[in-house]
This record gives sequence, C-alpha cells and structure tokens, in this order.
Amino acid sequence: MTELKNDLLLRALLRQPVERTPVWVMRQAGRYLPEYRATRAQAGDFLSLCSNPELACEVTLQPLRRFPLDAAILFSDILTVPDAMGLGLYFETGEGPRFKTPVRSAAQVRNLPDPDPETELRYVMDAVRTIRRELNGKVPLIGFTGSPWTLATYMVEGGGSKDYAHIKGMLFGEPAVLHELLEKTTRTVINYLNAQVAAGAQALMVFDTWGGSLSPANYLEFSLAYMKKIVDGVTREAEGRRVPIVLFTKNGGQWLEAIADTGCDAVGVDWTTDLSTARKLTGDRVALQGNLDPSALYASPEKIRDEVAKVLASYGKGPGHVFNLGHGIHQHVNPDHLGAMVEAVRELSPAYHD
Amino acid sequence: MTELKNDLLLRALLRQPVERTPVWVMRQAGRYLPEYRATRAQAGDFLSLCSNPELACEVTLQPLRRFPLDAAILFSDILTVPDAMGLGLYFETGEGPRFKTPVRSAAQVRNLPDPDPETELRYVMDAVRTIRRELNGKVPLIGFTGSPWTLATYMVEGGGSKDYAHIKGMLFGEPAVLHELLEKTTRTVINYLNAQVAAGAQALMVFDTWGGSLSPANYLEFSLAYMKKIVDGVTREAEGRRVPIVLFTKNGGQWLEAIADTGCDAVGVDWTTDLSTARKLTGDRVALQGNLDPSALYASPEKIRDEVAKVLASYGKGPGHVFNLGHGIHQHVNPDHLGAMVEAVRELSPAYHD
Repeated sequence: MTELKNDLLLRALLRQPVERTPVWVMRQAGRYLPEYRATRAQAGDFLSLCSNPELACEVTLQPLRRFPLDAAILFSDILTVPDAMGLGLYFETGEGPRFKTPVRSAAQVRNLPDPDPETELRYVMDAVRTIRRELNGKVPLIGFTGSPWTLATYMVEGGGSKDYAHIKGMLFGEPAVLHELLEKTTRTVINYLNAQVAAGAQALMVFDTWGGSLSPANYLEFSLAYMKKIVDGVTREAEGRRVPIVLFTKNGGQWLEAIADTGCDAVGVDWTTDLSTARKLTGDRVALQGNLDPSALYASPEKIRDEVAKVLASYGKGPGHVFNLGHGIHQHVNPDHLGAMVEAVRELSPAYHD
Repeated sequence: MTELKNDLLLRALLRQPVERTPVWVMRQAGRYLPEYRATRAQAGDFLSLCSNPELACEVTLQPLRRFPLDAAILFSDILTVPDAMGLGLYFETGEGPRFKTPVRSAAQVRNLPDPDPETELRYVMDAVRTIRRELNGKVPLIGFTGSPWTLATYMVEGGGSKDYAHIKGMLFGEPAVLHELLEKTTRTVINYLNAQVAAGAQALMVFDTWGGSLSPANYLEFSLAYMKKIVDGVTREAEGRRVPIVLFTKNGGQWLEAIADTGCDAVGVDWTTDLSTARKLTGDRVALQGNLDPSALYASPEKIRDEVAKVLASYGKGPGHVFNLGHGIHQHVNPDHLGAMVEAVRELSPAYHD
C-alpha cells in the first residue's frame, strides 16, 4: 500500500500529538455539493450511486478536491447491510428509505441470513478498494456502519419512524426476539467492518442515530452492549497501524462515560454537549470527535470562524480532538461556508498543540 | 370557586406530602381516544375544535371519565399564540401546522402586535372558564404555553422543521433580531398565562419542545433565559393557593440543574434521564414530572406495571414526583393500556409516601 501522507486523523483518534486539529465532516460527500447532485443524477438514483464503485469513489473524492479535509469517508448507506440480509431496500421519493419486508416476528429473525461481505456487499468492498487506490495515500479512508440498534430500528419499522411503535413494542413486549435480532445484526456488522478493513479502511465509525430515543437502561442493554461487541470483535490493526474505532450516539450526551468505557478509541459528540464537559466526563480516556452545530454553517464565514474558535477552545489544549460537525452537513448549506469552517480549523487549531 | 376535592397534583408540584403519587399524561385529551376523534370530526377540524370552548371542554374532560387522573389540562394548541400575533395558523393535511406569514425580518419582528388574551385569545379563556365550571373541583386544571424559543422556531420556520435553517440562520446571523422576537413573544406569553390563571388555571406548564436542538450556550441564551422571565413574570398565586409552574425541555436532560435554577416549582423530565439522576442533579429543589417512555404503552398491561414500578423506584421515597409520560401519548396506543398505567401508579405509589 502507498504511504499515508497525512495521518493527522489517525494520530488524533489515538490521542497522539498532532501539529493541528484534523477536520472532516459527516456527510461531506452529499447533496450540498452541486457536483454530487450531478453524479447522482448520472447514476439515476441514490441506490445506483451506492452500488457503483466507480461513482461511489467519485463522490467520496469530490469534497477533498474542494477542501483540504483530513479524511475521506466511504460513500455508502447504513442500510446496505439489512438490504444484504434480504429486506429489500428501496427509496420512496420524498419519503426516505423503506424495506419491502420489515422484520417483525421471531420466525423472521431466526431466518435472517448472515451475508458474506465479499459476496452480497461486494460493491461496497470494491468501492473501498477503488477509493484507496484513487486516494493514493493523500488522507486516510474511514469505513462505517450503522449501530445494531439503529439498523434494527429500520429493519423492524420498515423505514424511518416518528414514534418507534414496532421496535419499542418488540423491546418491551418480546425483548428476547429483539436481542436475537441485535445479536445477528452485530455478527453481520462485525464481518462487514472487518471486510472493509481488509479492503483498505483505515479507521472505523459506528453511527448510532437512534440510540438517543431510549431510556438510560434500555440504551445500555439494547444499543451500547452491541456496540461494545463490535469494538471487541473488529480488527484493530491493519497495514502495521492501529485502526481506530469511533462510536457516535446522536443525542447521547448523557451517556458519554459509558460509551468511553466500551474500549473504543474515540467518541462522537453532537452539539448539545460542550467538548469541555465531554472531556471531563470521559477523563481523557478517548479522543472526541465533533461538535459544531451543523446549522452554524448557515451563518456568515466570519461568524463561522467565531463558532469554530469556540469549539476549539472548549476542547482546549492537547491531542485527542477531531474537528467535525455534531451531525451531518445540511443539504442547503453553501459549500463555501464549509470551506470557511475548514480554513478556520486549519488556522486556529495549531495554537492548541505544542 | 368550588373547593378542590383532589389537590394531589398541586401538593406534589410544591413538594408537599401526599398519600400517593399523582398522575396525568401529556396529550391525555388526544387522538388515541375514539371519543376524541368523534368530537374532532364533529368540530370539523383541529382548529375549530380548539376555538370552540364547549368542545374544547368536552375533549378536556373525556380522559377523566375513563381514568382516575389527578389533573385536567386545557385542550388547546401552543400555536394559538403566534396565530393571535397575526401569523395565520393553518393545518395542511398530513403536514402539520403552518403559518401563512413566517417572521423572517427585523421589520416583521418590530411590527408584531401584542395580542390581548381576553380579546384575540378569548376562546381559550372561555375554554378555561368552561372547564373549571364543569370540573366542579374534581381535579386541578393545568394551563400551558409553548416556550418562547419553541414558538419562535415555528414562527420563523413557518411550520415544523427538520434542520431549523431559518431560525438557526437568524440565531447565528442576526441574534439581536431573534432576541427581540423572543422578548416580544415572552411578553405575550406572560400575559397569556396570567389570563389563564385569572380564568381559572391552577397550575402552569411551559413546553419547550425544541430547546433540545440547541448547544448548551445557545440553550441558556435563547431558550432558558426567556423561560426564566416567564417564571419571574407570571402570577404565582390565585384563589388563596400557590400556582405551581413546570418547565419542560424535551431532550433537556443535560440542563436539568440550570432549569431548576430558574425558580420554577417543577421540572419535566423525558425518559432519557433516570429520575434518580434528575433528582440528584436538581438536589430536591424542585418537583419532577415524568418520565415513562411513551412507547412503553405499546407493551402488555403486565409489562406496563413493571415499567411503572421502575419509574416510581427511580424517583424513590418522599414527595415531589408527579407521574407522567416523558412526552405526549402516542396516537396508536390502546386506551386500556393507559388505564393499566394509571392503575399501577395508584396501586404501587403509596409505598413511596409516609
């Protein structure tokens, strides 16, 4: 493999010294970029884009051509995994993702297949390999998955949900069935992440989008316990380097200590918790990734710079911070505003490192 | 006024001794009840129902006929206030609330009228008077409002929002304009709540539905500061009794201490924070209201009883707890399941009081 020219992200995720704070943003390959919209139109639809390794590589690299970002993240969708488990993913215009066959019964859970990542999800692994080749060592590539709880939510609801009627019904009514579903999904996810690492992913991230919909006890039992199994089960070294793993629970500010206790390398922090608080809570055991309010990018470049300064100051001195938004970039943001954010991080962050 | 036969709610909100933990639920007059749906159909639509004092009274009382609840809550909508400020509230089928004239400029903010509650919102005050008469002292009546931040969010966005582009754009870009809007809305809300108390409301609740979308610093500056003005500005006594006020920020678990510091009587707690934690954080300075996951009502009556037991145990011994869901009851819940919840609270809670 080609030598990695910029390893700031990997060092920061492992709390090693860096010259400046690395920066990337969730959903950096996305609809706010006109070139992304053009490639997506060329692909036909979102799923065709995900399943075409050349085009997935193209959109992965687009934000790196515009901005001096310190990481690429695989362009894919968390729902490719349940799709590979036979649920039949499709997108209803304006409605978001849907599954043809939601999983609602013990029999359905029992019969779920365990897909082979290099077969049913080969297009993802091909995308990883293509991106690594094209990146040519410029920055590291982040692989990712949805958390078992988040995937199970979509699998049981059959799509997005406002009140989680089906999955919460299962949680309270048939917890053993839900645990079996989470167990199976976790096994599949571990294989999927390991295949991503084998194909070239250099860091891993688990997105727990819906963990914040749970009570503390249910979060620990139905979401975090399975993320810990992932942390314990995935390859943590490749190409002679540590492969850091980041856990991110949206609206998980109250559980940062417990997340840090899983043994992960880094914790994603949304914007409802100050990094100073998060750092105290996690006691410098993990790196922190975040946490500018994505809506701050609606402000002027000058104001964005002020807000970047606040986030950097909140984390404070020393290694262990990866700058990011607290959630994915909004689609109506002016790309130049992201540019202003990245520039501000590059200019202001060296003061926080020796 | 008639003597209040059941004042458990008022005593619990003031942390005074009670024989058992009082219970009511947010949105207890709502779509999960077939009789509500029938009355709403009779009214024609939601707004006609809100603006008809007799029918608003009818739906307010419906849940009390089914379940031995310890409070009634005025049936109305938080958006009647911006409607009275001239924004033109309407409901798009399947789309939720909308305003004909969103407030986006400094000039619009400057020109917002300050409605007189007994004129532009007289139908609400008539509903309060009618409900008090019909309740005839059975249980206390809770009046309510949306928080200034939550109302402003709807006013600026022109309806519900996923990414808060307009209001966050104003927050980061023109904070002085937003502060003027919040200031005006706060004045209107204080008048509105005082009129509700004059008309017969015996406790008050402020719903801060969207405060949880803010960073800690922005929450304090743009949401909590205005709720504190409400706490300071409203009538706290009527009919020779204290009128308790409850503040509830959905997803506000990280800020419970700050909320308690406003001088409110009680704090609403959603289900993402254990009451034991909330009680520690607020140091018994306030009562706590909550906090069963509304989705627990999808479970069987036996399981619901277990979950009620956990909430009661989490709060523990002594006064200062009002049992409630952590958010509004979901529309697809079987009403009998709410009955099971109320029964469990009545049966299990005396053990926690001397």
